[in-house]
Amino acid sequence: MDVLRWENRQLLLLDQTLLPHRTEYLTCTHYRDVAEAISLLRVRGAPAIGVAAAYGYALAAFNYQEDRGGSLEDYLKKATRELGDTRSTAVNLRWALEQMDRAYRTVKDKPLDEVREHLLEAARGIHMDELRLEKRIADFGSSLIPKRARILTYCNTGALATAGWGTALGIVRTAHDQGKDIEVYVSETRPVLQGARLTAWELQQAGIPYKLITDNMAGYLFRQNEVDLVLLGADRIAANGDFANKIGTYNLAVLANFHDCPFYVAAPSSTIDLKIDTGEEIPIEMRDPQEVRTVRGHLITIEGCPVLNPSFDVTPHQLVSAFITEKGVIKPPYDLVKIFAEEGADR
Amino acid sequence: MDVLRWENRQLLLLDQTLLPHRTEYLTCTHYRDVAEAISLLRVRGAPAIGVAAAYGYALAAFNYQEDRGGSLEDYLKKATRELGDTRSTAVNLRWALEQMDRAYRTVKDKPLDEVREHLLEAARGIHMDELRLEKRIADFGSSLIPKRARILTYCNTGALATAGWGTALGIVRTAHDQGKDIEVYVSETRPVLQGARLTAWELQQAGIPYKLITDNMAGYLFRQNEVDLVLLGADRIAANGDFANKIGTYNLAVLANFHDCPFYVAAPSSTIDLKIDTGEEIPIEMRDPQEVRTVRGHLITIEGCPVLNPSFDVTPHQLVSAFITEKGVIKPPYDLVKIFAEEGADR
Repeated sequence: MDVLRWENRQLLLLDQTLLPHRTEYLTCTHYRDVAEAISLLRVRGAPAIGVAAAYGYALAAFNYQEDRGGSLEDYLKKATRELGDTRSTAVNLRWALEQMDRAYRTVKDKPLDEVREHLLEAARGIHMDELRLEKRIADFGSSLIPKRARILTYCNTGALATAGWGTALGIVRTAHDQGKDIEVYVSETRPVLQGARLTAWELQQAGIPYKLITDNMAGYLFRQNEVDLVLLGADRIAANGDFANKIGTYNLAVLANFHDCPFYVAAPSSTIDLKIDTGEEIPIEMRDPQEVRTVRGHLITIEGCPVLNPSFDVTPHQLVSAFITEKGVIKPPYDLVKIFAEEGADR
Repeated sequence: MDVLRWENRQLLLLDQTLLPHRTEYLTCTHYRDVAEAISLLRVRGAPAIGVAAAYGYALAAFNYQEDRGGSLEDYLKKATRELGDTRSTAVNLRWALEQMDRAYRTVKDKPLDEVREHLLEAARGIHMDELRLEKRIADFGSSLIPKRARILTYCNTGALATAGWGTALGIVRTAHDQGKDIEVYVSETRPVLQGARLTAWELQQAGIPYKLITDNMAGYLFRQNEVDLVLLGADRIAANGDFANKIGTYNLAVLANFHDCPFYVAAPSSTIDLKIDTGEEIPIEMRDPQEVRTVRGHLITIEGCPVLNPSFDVTPHQLVSAFITEKGVIKPPYDLVKIFAEEGADR
């Protein structure tokens, strides 16, 4: 099942807010449909929103109408701003839009139809490149997984969250395909329940054994020696290795550290933001309090009660056992600038 | 609002599964109604189920019918077994039933009506004693609370969970009444959401400032220096200070430890089980998987998916900064046998 698909000048997005109960595609005919879908988490996961934004940029070129006045360049700038403003923490979104802008610059003086086709090809290129890198990450990552392993994962980092294979969950999938005896503990991941809704669903479909837990059960599992390793994704990685990921990641990092359990982070280099030195500089998206007051639309507390709803937290690099990227497994000390500065070298 | 109330040979229990949306009392005319209410969490919280079980024992004496054959003693034994089998982790339940059995032994040869009245008085005595102890715990505990404090609490330890004042939340209430500037972070406490449904409701009613968070946000708060202390209850405390409490407590203990944040446990001595040496011996109640698959009856994942649902976890005594009991604030090293062995000395 494709997470997103380009068809007849339209972007079809699998509406992830309806999973696992319904599988429906949303038809985006305008870049604003894409921006809205990203805002409302209909498409989510750092790599997936990067790919969706790239297609959104291409879509904007198709939406542009010369006879309405204004230049294509200005129109694309506006689209870039609107697409980029949807989510603040994941950097893949901005990375993809920068790639698209670069692609635009190489053909900006060509006829409109040619520009459109070129941008569509660029978006497809980003999509396919990311997919290729995910498979590479999965191969590198699988080398870290023992023949028998009980893996604690978090949020959703599978096909749904990415270009189509997965980062952390892609590694799980590859390790399973290689015949390893894997069991996954899936944290439900409140408030939006990406674990319970999406990761459980992907594992079920793939026939990989798993157990669902509430987020607060992780400590119990560690104390019972039920976890061999933690494996999860990232939304933005700073140059020193501090990284932002779904709220609750930091809890698991501290627990893993306390129990001497390996804690691995899988992400493509589009997640690495060398422009920032440490995690302190990563903006944390605060979302609608109603997400905490409700579960799937049902009120679980007092209407309008005071709430905190940071969507991400930052884990310091000291708690990370290794990063798994398309350039290999990176162990401390983390000198990400040295490894990733020659941008695009491997892409 | 009373959590439970004896009226006309009936025990009225506030049905906590309906809070905060509805406040309804359940009428228990038979001890089995009480057992069922405890099983289904209509009444919950270690001290509250102790008190409810004591009234349940008294109710059994009223349910007993001489002309049906069988002795009252056998009937009470059966009731004790059924009431005691409802929840396995909290020890207050067993403690209260033992107290009631002791009360029965002192009057067993008296006429039935006299036995009934005596047992009802014994249940009321346990109820009022516990309430008195809770106020004492609150006074001792409040001495640990700074003039301004941001307190992270867990599950529900207020009037609803106890004989009527609260343990950890009773301390919060007393500190607030003393004019201290308190803000409470309320963890929602999945799967049954005692924090979101009950603690938020109690704090709202008491006018104490609070913010609701999902359980996985605790680490974020610690890292932002938003927590001055953790204050929560216990369901069973072993002789060495290891204690069982609502699943997720251990996560908070590890986080508090990592952040050098005080971690306080408030409980009456009926929660202390000197018969067991360490937390290893505390039985952990595993509850219905459906509690994890659903939230307030709404399915959040795949129907029938594999689930783990331990209702409690055990926190080792090394992570506890102090126990707050009716005998005062107890700091490490914990020699609970020495302090609590002369049973009933202060009661």
